Amino acid sequence: MSRTAKAVYLHGVGDLRIHEEPVPQIAAPNEVLIRVAAVGVCGSDCHFYRRGRIGRFVVKEPIILGHEFSGTVVDVGAEVEHLKQGDQVAVEPGIPCRRCQRCREGRYNLCEREVVFMATPGLTHGAFREYLTWPADLAFKLPERVSLEDGAMVEPLAVGVQACRRAGIVPGQSAAVLGAGPIGLLAAQAAASYGAHPVVVTDVVSTRVALAEKLGMTAVDAGKSDVVEAIRARTEGRGVDAVIETAGTLPTVREAMAAVKTGGVVVLVGMLAEEEGMLRAMDIIEREYDVRGVFRYATCYLPALSLIAAGRIDLASLRTHEFPLDQTEEAIKTTIEDKAGAVKVLVRP
Amino acid sequence: MSRTAKAVYLHGVGDLRIHEEPVPQIAAPNEVLIRVAAVGVCGSDCHFYRRGRIGRFVVKEPIILGHEFSGTVVDVGAEVEHLKQGDQVAVEPGIPCRRCQRCREGRYNLCEREVVFMATPGLTHGAFREYLTWPADLAFKLPERVSLEDGAMVEPLAVGVQACRRAGIVPGQSAAVLGAGPIGLLAAQAAASYGAHPVVVTDVVSTRVALAEKLGMTAVDAGKSDVVEAIRARTEGRGVDAVIETAGTLPTVREAMAAVKTGGVVVLVGMLAEEEGMLRAMDIIEREYDVRGVFRYATCYLPALSLIAAGRIDLASLRTHEFPLDQTEEAIKTTIEDKAGAVKVLVRP
Amino acid sequence: MSRTAKAVYLHGVGDLRIHEEPVPQIAAPNEVLIRVAAVGVCGSDCHFYRRGRIGRFVVKEPIILGHEFSGTVVDVGAEVEHLKQGDQVAVEPGIPCRRCQRCREGRYNLCEREVVFMATPGLTHGAFREYLTWPADLAFKLPERVSLEDGAMVEPLAVGVQACRRAGIVPGQSAAVLGAGPIGLLAAQAAASYGAHPVVVTDVVSTRVALAEKLGMTAVDAGKSDVVEAIRARTEGRGVDAVIETAGTLPTVREAMAAVKTGGVVVLVGMLAEEEGMLRAMDIIEREYDVRGVFRYATCYLPALSLIAAGRIDLASLRTHEFPLDQTEEAIKTTIEDKAGAVKVLVRP
Amino acid sequence: MSRTAKAVYLHGVGDLRIHEEPVPQIAAPNEVLIRVAAVGVCGSDCHFYRRGRIGRFVVKEPIILGHEFSGTVVDVGAEVEHLKQGDQVAVEPGIPCRRCQRCREGRYNLCEREVVFMATPGLTHGAFREYLTWPADLAFKLPERVSLEDGAMVEPLAVGVQACRRAGIVPGQSAAVLGAGPIGLLAAQAAASYGAHPVVVTDVVSTRVALAEKLGMTAVDAGKSDVVEAIRARTEGRGVDAVIETAGTLPTVREAMAAVKTGGVVVLVGMLAEEEGMLRAMDIIEREYDVRGVFRYATCYLPALSLIAAGRIDLASLRTHEFPLDQTEEAIKTTIEDKAGAVKVLVRP
Repeated sequence: MSRTAKAVYLHGVGDLRIHEEPVPQIAAPNEVLIRVAAVGVCGSDCHFYRRGRIGRFVVKEPIILGHEFSGTVVDVGAEVEHLKQGDQVAVEPGIPCRRCQRCREGRYNLCEREVVFMATPGLTHGAFREYLTWPADLAFKLPERVSLEDGAMVEPLAVGVQACRRAGIVPGQSAAVLGAGPIGLLAAQAAASYGAHPVVVTDVVSTRVALAEKLGMTAVDAGKSDVVEAIRARTEGRGVDAVIETAGTLPTVREAMAAVKTGGVVVLVGMLAEEEGMLRAMDIIEREYDVRGVFRYATCYLPALSLIAAGRIDLASLRTHEFPLDQTEEAIKTTIEDKAGAVKVLVRP
Repeated sequence: MSRTAKAVYLHGVGDLRIHEEPVPQIAAPNEVLIRVAAVGVCGSDCHFYRRGRIGRFVVKEPIILGHEFSGTVVDVGAEVEHLKQGDQVAVEPGIPCRRCQRCREGRYNLCEREVVFMATPGLTHGAFREYLTWPADLAFKLPERVSLEDGAMVEPLAVGVQACRRAGIVPGQSAAVLGAGPIGLLAAQAAASYGAHPVVVTDVVSTRVALAEKLGMTAVDAGKSDVVEAIRARTEGRGVDAVIETAGTLPTVREAMAAVKTGGVVVLVGMLAEEEGMLRAMDIIEREYDVRGVFRYATCYLPALSLIAAGRIDLASLRTHEFPLDQTEEAIKTTIEDKAGAVKVLVRP
Repeated sequence: MSRTAKAVYLHGVGDLRIHEEPVPQIAAPNEVLIRVAAVGVCGSDCHFYRRGRIGRFVVKEPIILGHEFSGTVVDVGAEVEHLKQGDQVAVEPGIPCRRCQRCREGRYNLCEREVVFMATPGLTHGAFREYLTWPADLAFKLPERVSLEDGAMVEPLAVGVQACRRAGIVPGQSAAVLGAGPIGLLAAQAAASYGAHPVVVTDVVSTRVALAEKLGMTAVDAGKSDVVEAIRARTEGRGVDAVIETAGTLPTVREAMAAVKTGGVVVLVGMLAEEEGMLRAMDIIEREYDVRGVFRYATCYLPALSLIAAGRIDLASLRTHEFPLDQTEEAIKTTIEDKAGAVKVLVRP
Repeated sequence: MSRTAKAVYLHGVGDLRIHEEPVPQIAAPNEVLIRVAAVGVCGSDCHFYRRGRIGRFVVKEPIILGHEFSGTVVDVGAEVEHLKQGDQVAVEPGIPCRRCQRCREGRYNLCEREVVFMATPGLTHGAFREYLTWPADLAFKLPERVSLEDGAMVEPLAVGVQACRRAGIVPGQSAAVLGAGPIGLLAAQAAASYGAHPVVVTDVVSTRVALAEKLGMTAVDAGKSDVVEAIRARTEGRGVDAVIETAGTLPTVREAMAAVKTGGVVVLVGMLAEEEGMLRAMDIIEREYDVRGVFRYATCYLPALSLIAAGRIDLASLRTHEFPLDQTEEAIKTTIEDKAGAVKVLVRP
């Protein structure tokens, strides 16, 4: 193993640079050293690249982006039992405190001490690099027949799993997913895997609608049809039991509330630019439904991996582009510009 | 038993008249004939009296109001097994279809065919009268030591129970109830009975704040203190696990969302006059909490009666006035005008 | 429509006779008249045929057996809204009282007044006949692409759905189904549809093991391998999250308890001949797991139909034989004698 | 603070000795040093004293017993934020790995790596001593008005809370607790706090029956009445929704199964000496109820403390004896011999 390795740092808006630096070393007995294999480009990576900040998190020091990734274990700490050299893993990118009330009760995504989340300014670096160390319990061995490329997509699938879990989807229920980006398409497949039928997927981009259809969903082109009517038409006028809103716009939030069945659940996943959405409180009361937020995920990697291993999620159809590490900027730009219908773009360090 | 009996009809806005009419007869084998003993005045009764309508329900024909009531069984249909003459009962005022999907799964308050709810124009008459017939399975025998006056308050307590159930309150959790009217004070006591501690109750009316305190709640005068700060101060800065909003105003809905703990539940009970509340979608996402509506109740009478029988709910302190049937108008006016601190006003036919 | 129709009556042990009798008429406004299309033979039909009784239910009067069936609506009562002539339906064979506490809360399979279940001596006749009337709300319209043959198998699938619901299966969990008869094979497919992976299916009959494998399950021949070891080997030694016991024998009940993961759930479905199973109380405590009974099903027809419509259940592979109504006895004997690997045998009236 | 402190070691069966040893020092940044204030004697302490073993845990080296305790913080590690010198705490005596699947999902009592539980041979020492260090996150600050004596009883109350949580008790339900020892009496009070009414408590020891009655329970003397009949008589013949079995005998396990309502839950808490209980599998199926194990507790300290702070648990009535540390043997003997009606005996180091 070479002594130095490459890492891609964001120095400021639009300023990505490749550094050569020492390969990191295991510093704690429960860590693993991972050779990064594949990293998905996330909307938040693009946002940092273009704006230099997301909310209160501002790029002041150079930071390595990327948090959707897989890799191969090359070294393990003294206390690591469940992994060994050569194991391929998908990695959960947030480290909770493990000790507060929320962590203890299993909702560690709401850790009271702030999750140390990868690629977050002020917290810790991300995965656009060749090597990194990480707590071993957050590295999940890929089951047989799950590739490293698949492994890099466990993170966004975990968001979809969290959404389905928060929605409480079970067989007999119907679902709608608003927005057919990577999160939407993965949430839709997760919803089907949780038993929902039909799963209606809507988007205004026709290539994404087509992809949703290819994935077996009931696809609706929101540019051509009234989404709420289309959903009602497929549910005997009742609306769906669960709506997963991933588009993050006021119109789709309103569609979500109009399309949910009386007594159903709207799950909000898509971040809204506007400070205030317009949720009609009176409608929530009269039709006794729920609006539930989703913030990342907790204990979703195992279910996500299980669904992939069971062959219930088509990840390959979502992977549209692949770039080597030194073309990370191209990968980010491709995601932003959506050239040639980019859905999920991977960087291969 | 006399052949005729009195009933109070609303003929139009502010126009209540006493009619003398034949005592109703059992018309189906599963009905009971009830001598009404006590009827609580509800805000909806006042609204019909003052406005002649609530939403799409418009008083076109004379209608008997009142739906919070107890009484004594005086006759039973051929198939009635669990009740006999002389039994004292609290009565659930809505008849669901019992056959649709929602009824079958236990959420009959969301009956797809519309619940036949008492005192609703176009549906059926209410309880401001001496006698009425009703399906026997909706008449719940009062346990020992539960009075007829208590029985008339099971209906609003059932709303509080539904709110706690929808909030998922269990011991170890804290709760806040916004609004200390009858529903708020009953929901607060229900929340304590479900195990919540502390239960913070807020209102702008100081007599109601005092009553909340007397009932053992942590009372906050919203006219004098910042509600959200007060709630945070009592929960180590975290906010409460469950907020039950009963005031039905935009400011209190906003307080509800600000006062709920990350990962907690806001339950909306209070009807809002304005069509659109301002629920901040982004806050729901970032703090992963739930906003859940409450529409009446389903299977809440038995829990409500059980809590009363167990001595866990102080109903007597909420009963401030009592009027005979021919002073029903006075009872309604007292409730509206809140003279002398009216909380729950009973009519005794 | 002819005025008379055929029905197959059991007069006593091994004594089936075809009667010609008047076509039944709709007697209540919420009934439908159904032309029976397909009836599955159940183990209970075989038991009545061979023994003349099941527990306290003794054949004293001639009775029509059969309760797993589909048909076509030929007439509807005045109040029936959701069905019309020509609709194809799967029919739930038990009529609950709809009014007791259990019915009201959605667990109507536990109806306090006893469910009027088809083909039960003393209660009501079954479906081995050409026509019958039944409450319309218990007749579920078959979705598109669901055949009448499929419709006749909704009933046993509903048992599998109830088992999965009682087990609380969600993605990320593993399951084992002990016994690969019709109930076991349907429960296994239901478990996969609820998200379980792997789903291990065990049986001592090798043809059934082969069928389980064909259906995509992880099949284990209990005659050749140690079931508990095989299950542990496929779950990193932990055991499965949920075991569904359908074989109804003491050895398989013990296997169930040994194969369940610490903190998991054993669901008991298979009726045991012996009065007392040997459940190790201490093991339940030390490994904090649950043992949960399944008695028929409640609100499981819609989920079952939804899973079939979604293409997630292979019913055709389980249908091994078909007989006309006048060969009902042959159908029952085929099921009993398991000639040529009978799994599900249908009678087509 | 003196440099040495006393600790009581069990050297073998019936052989307790007081050692003088160095006061322990904080060894990790998240530890606290605690001056032990009160330690409850548990049945397991008595068992080790009398038999020198419990199951696979054998006293080979001298060990300090005691795991139900409270104390005052005298020093805190560098990373401890929520505690400071002088804080009074109740301490959770088991340290989970915090990293396995079970820990991550909130069921850390089922930790895959074995909880390091106090006073367990081969694992770690207990609390019959003056000072000890422990992870700070397992030390819970006592709320106002909760005494150190109360704090020493949080541990057994946590078992009662876990039992109620596992039983899913909510208002409207009835409960029975079999066995009125400390665990039974605390579980009964927890059940009432979770909303159960009535809570029937049974025992064969009349002083304990009297104590149960004093605590507000519906007490049944199992030596004088048929327990199952008595429970049915108080539940309109249905049986109770939840039975919590704490006596740990075959007859009471059988009573539990006979006394539970159809569709209800039996929770097994009491350890059985016999290897096999006799749970009737067929009864579980026909009446579709659950049998659920309880193994210690997870995330139950906060609910337990909340219930105590809310004034809903009478702990004082259960504390019958108190001994200084050098009379630990007397405390254990008193518990064993049940002289003068010992319920909970405290040691005050």
